[in-house]
Amino acid sequence: MAKIADNRLLLGIDLGGTKSAALIATAGGEIRHRVSAPTPAQGGPGEIVPFLIELAQRALREGPGPVSGVGVSAGAPTDGRTGHVYEAPNLPGWGNDGVPLADLLSDALGGLPIAVENDANATALAEHRFGAGRGTTDMAFLTVGTGIGAGLILGGRLHRGRSALAGEIGHIAVEPGGRPCPCGLRGCLEAYASGPSVTRIAVEKGFQGEPTGQAVVVAARGGDEAAAAALAQAAQMLGRGLATLCMITNVERIVLGTLAVHAADLLLPTIRAVVNKSTWHGISEHLSIVPAELGDRAQDLAAICAWLTRDEEHLP
Amino acid sequence: MAKIADNRLLLGIDLGGTKSAALIATAGGEIRHRVSAPTPAQGGPGEIVPFLIELAQRALREGPGPVSGVGVSAGAPTDGRTGHVYEAPNLPGWGNDGVPLADLLSDALGGLPIAVENDANATALAEHRFGAGRGTTDMAFLTVGTGIGAGLILGGRLHRGRSALAGEIGHIAVEPGGRPCPCGLRGCLEAYASGPSVTRIAVEKGFQGEPTGQAVVVAARGGDEAAAAALAQAAQMLGRGLATLCMITNVERIVLGTLAVHAADLLLPTIRAVVNKSTWHGISEHLSIVPAELGDRAQDLAAICAWLTRDEEHLP
Repeated sequence: MAKIADNRLLLGIDLGGTKSAALIATAGGEIRHRVSAPTPAQGGPGEIVPFLIELAQRALREGPGPVSGVGVSAGAPTDGRTGHVYEAPNLPGWGNDGVPLADLLSDALGGLPIAVENDANATALAEHRFGAGRGTTDMAFLTVGTGIGAGLILGGRLHRGRSALAGEIGHIAVEPGGRPCPCGLRGCLEAYASGPSVTRIAVEKGFQGEPTGQAVVVAARGGDEAAAAALAQAAQMLGRGLATLCMITNVERIVLGTLAVHAADLLLPTIRAVVNKSTWHGISEHLSIVPAELGDRAQDLAAICAWLTRDEEHLP
Repeated sequence: MAKIADNRLLLGIDLGGTKSAALIATAGGEIRHRVSAPTPAQGGPGEIVPFLIELAQRALREGPGPVSGVGVSAGAPTDGRTGHVYEAPNLPGWGNDGVPLADLLSDALGGLPIAVENDANATALAEHRFGAGRGTTDMAFLTVGTGIGAGLILGGRLHRGRSALAGEIGHIAVEPGGRPCPCGLRGCLEAYASGPSVTRIAVEKGFQGEPTGQAVVVAARGGDEAAAAALAQAAQMLGRGLATLCMITNVERIVLGTLAVHAADLLLPTIRAVVNKSTWHGISEHLSIVPAELGDRAQDLAAICAWLTRDEEHLP
């Protein structure tokens, strides 16, 4: 794939369930200007699309320019090929037929070329280009937060799948017939290892502290048995899910985000041990499982990478 | 990818654990000449490599020519990028460091260009080009025989993974802590759904007939309860494994070979029902699960496709 000159300016838009941001950055990942505001999440696309346009126009007005393309990282199911965004639990109102966000934003921004990806895919691209996945050909980025999802880079390219739903590892059955998952299935990885699931399981086991993922992690470090047991089970289940992922895709690196970064000391040793024990040596010997590197910059760079990748895919 | 003129002649070599073949075929898949012989499987590469060279030379001597390339489909772990073939249970003696089969054959065949793939990958390529996977961008071919393995076509290309072990779906845990598998792990798909596993489980359940996969299938059709129960469990586990495969890769087609072709009537309805129930609607509505189409020609065409694909990957 052709490289893009690093000093080209791009507009990035991060659509989150709580906050959103618009930023001007170079193709090399240097953020030059940034504005953010709380997302009117319950207002549906009727409120969110004008809100994003306003945010983008502010960034374009206040930051350096001109920009040559726009990348959007959306915290909702997104078809990166069409730029449609679909209904998500924390972003209601987008419908099962989706909203053509790429077209709507491009029209409002003077026809600038635009690419929209879901945030797991976009963050996978960002960690691959700028972070813990640099230099790999086959990698997975796993977000372990409110939900669990993966973005897959296979053969050096983002793998989206037939309906852009590849990477739904949060809802593979790691314990068939096990705990009910909010999605309606049973025994899903997400039912054991998402932030809310870990918290719920800790409380069931007798955890008395504040019911948040962060409080459970702090308590586990301090010796709280219920908190430690909930996190140990989460690590076990993450190990099972990642072993399956590796047997199917044979990736060389798995980059873990969110909870797995904040609680890497508590989770990673067990995750690695379970994966090693449950995969071929020929797979595990070429595999590293590491925390994400981009931290607070991840979502901004994810937005930029959504566009950079699209631009490169379209080059001859 | 560039298309190759269909009338170019190629040499295909199918290295099997029981029989091997060498054939002259067109790039369009028309087989013009074919020779085969029992594989000296226990003799290791010291006997098998000269045996394959002899078989290939006979095909080249007796069939039409000249050929422009050689494809090999090997029933053993193979790194398609290097042409190394590794130890397999039914092909002992190749070692964990492997044997450079591509180089050895090419030298003996006057420097003809050559590509070697494992048979699951090569058959995936054949079903994709000539069979039940025609026209798809994302598909999986699953062989369900003595072992269970998959070849993955993702984004229109063969996905091999970091160490060419992608597609090891036979050894993902569909029942964590479940039946021991000959591989040393527990609860593997292969421990429930391979031909030998189905036979073993039928016998455990009281099946009195000849202990072969074929006899179990015939008995199940005739109303034998133990045989039917063993196949029902296999279908259930195949459904679990394929649901996981689909949630991770979002393929649009799964092509099932071997046992799943011979017992499609007994297995496919349950497999499809379990996959539908265990995946997102957005995944299953774009998915078809179908029997392989190439039948007896599969291994011959697999060998040809190993070379055709390599040739196209190398074109600019």
